[in-house]
Amino acid sequence: MSGESENAQMVQRILQGDVRAIARTLSLVENEYGPSTIEILRRLFVHSGKAFILGVTGSPGVGKSTLVDCLARHYRHKGTRVGIIAVDPTSPFSGGAILGDRVRMQRLATDPGVYIRSMATRGRLGGLSSAVQEALIVLDAAGFDILIVETVGVGQDEVDIARAAHATLVVLVPGLGDDVQAAKAGIMEIGDIFAINKADREGVDKAEAELRAYFSLSPRQDGWKPPLLRTVATQCQGIRELGRAVEGLRRRPQSPSGDSRHRMLRLYRQLLLDRLRERLTRQILDSLPEGEIDRYAEKMMTRELDPYTIMDRLLGPSGIGEKKP
Amino acid sequence: MSGESENAQMVQRILQGDVRAIARTLSLVENEYGPSTIEILRRLFVHSGKAFILGVTGSPGVGKSTLVDCLARHYRHKGTRVGIIAVDPTSPFSGGAILGDRVRMQRLATDPGVYIRSMATRGRLGGLSSAVQEALIVLDAAGFDILIVETVGVGQDEVDIARAAHATLVVLVPGLGDDVQAAKAGIMEIGDIFAINKADREGVDKAEAELRAYFSLSPRQDGWKPPLLRTVATQCQGIRELGRAVEGLRRRPQSPSGDSRHRMLRLYRQLLLDRLRERLTRQILDSLPEGEIDRYAEKMMTRELDPYTIMDRLLGPSGIGEKKP
Repeated sequence: MSGESENAQMVQRILQGDVRAIARTLSLVENEYGPSTIEILRRLFVHSGKAFILGVTGSPGVGKSTLVDCLARHYRHKGTRVGIIAVDPTSPFSGGAILGDRVRMQRLATDPGVYIRSMATRGRLGGLSSAVQEALIVLDAAGFDILIVETVGVGQDEVDIARAAHATLVVLVPGLGDDVQAAKAGIMEIGDIFAINKADREGVDKAEAELRAYFSLSPRQDGWKPPLLRTVATQCQGIRELGRAVEGLRRRPQSPSGDSRHRMLRLYRQLLLDRLRERLTRQILDSLPEGEIDRYAEKMMTRELDPYTIMDRLLGPSGIGEKKP
Repeated sequence: MSGESENAQMVQRILQGDVRAIARTLSLVENEYGPSTIEILRRLFVHSGKAFILGVTGSPGVGKSTLVDCLARHYRHKGTRVGIIAVDPTSPFSGGAILGDRVRMQRLATDPGVYIRSMATRGRLGGLSSAVQEALIVLDAAGFDILIVETVGVGQDEVDIARAAHATLVVLVPGLGDDVQAAKAGIMEIGDIFAINKADREGVDKAEAELRAYFSLSPRQDGWKPPLLRTVATQCQGIRELGRAVEGLRRRPQSPSGDSRHRMLRLYRQLLLDRLRERLTRQILDSLPEGEIDRYAEKMMTRELDPYTIMDRLLGPSGIGEKKP
């Protein structure tokens, strides 16, 4: 069978929601980004754009995964198909993402209406954010109605990923100096819904009061008043209210409001720039002799050459600033 | 005065440790990356490579900044010059980095032997990690003995930044489910020293026991046994011991051990690749008509075009995978 018809067949299987085809393609996206991957993504892209993408973010240990699992079960009761991408930038060190996948699979994934995948690839030149964007295209084309992207919400990549969502749920907990926690995580401004999880803990009233004070002092420029909810994810408490808040946001992007259109345009712009950057870097690396970058790194280490002079040799002078904007 | 001699003069002032020249150049690195910036960095690079770079990382709210300030004071008592870069990927939303700078400046920076700078730039095509790497070149050339880079240690960029350091201090606190906190933050493997801060809090014994259990179950491949210390940063408790642990690591990179050489090579390799990626992206964007990317993003939004076809138009077919490795 030719590569062409293999790709076409893979695309057909994904469009029908075939779980093994989805898993295989997500592995390609993460680890073996080659011409087949690009061809499959190219064909899937036109079928994507229908799912609602919810980002879920918060510090480590606040209970994001448990809360997302509750939300997924809530949606499954209504027959909604849910795809979950758990972003874990750390696991190349520890293999943690895979392990986490398995634990969660046992809880949820006997249901074919739920697909869970952890992503942790640092190998891709385009970075984690690129891999997640493309995984979302695959799951979207595969017909999942809601795509949930879990991130640890403090890094730049994680903020980029959250920005690629239609809406973002920020999960906090009482007690870790909530003011500091929220402000430092810088997620106040990207949060469309806030959940105070572990709300059976001491300090929940204080945490809520602080958040409400923050909201009234720093209203959002777009006029949106983020719902603030209490949850206890270990018992799936507060999930119905959370589901209602998400549904409120899910109806937004379909509206022709300038804000969500602007947000989607930014998303596609970023997707395109990330792809461009990745392909350009690949092209220059492929054009260099084996080990050339390492040899240059050695010369940098000994201060024989600086990186700017090396680039002039590889690419010609930068010309940065020579062109009028 | 010509740009050439202005750049040369700026370089001279930085080499003499002139604070205003340093601040001006760091602003160029962050915000106005142009031919002058590159020329200044090119000239500074050969004077860099002498400072010891310590990464400090941990979840939001664990007290990293306060601990770093204690450590800086500790070093100042010994006459060591300390540069601090506080990485805050969030502040473009809130302006928080600038505010944080000012608060800390009041505590420390009347001392010319300490330089503190927050960095939060998301505008640079090369990303935050690139900007931090180049800021380190500036401070290194300016003669600071120890450079401390504070990051919120869970994002991909933050891990990249930590990897660019000679050694990394991981700050934890008792009580946030330390096992989860540490494993999810994925920073166990990049930590060369561990500090349990807020060690006057309940749960510190449990936290320490869990960490020690983790260490003995997952020994590091390079054989290094990370020191585990207790600190109370608000009172600068435990700082002498912390300083000793840092000094132990500071002596490592000067040793001809394969591990640190390997680490430094990886650092320079990454610095070069980041620069290449940034310049390539800049070149392609400069070659496009104004607004072209936005027009393509519109066509992606309507599904008229997919990003892979757009790239083929802009760059020619990718050729990914066509070349034998």
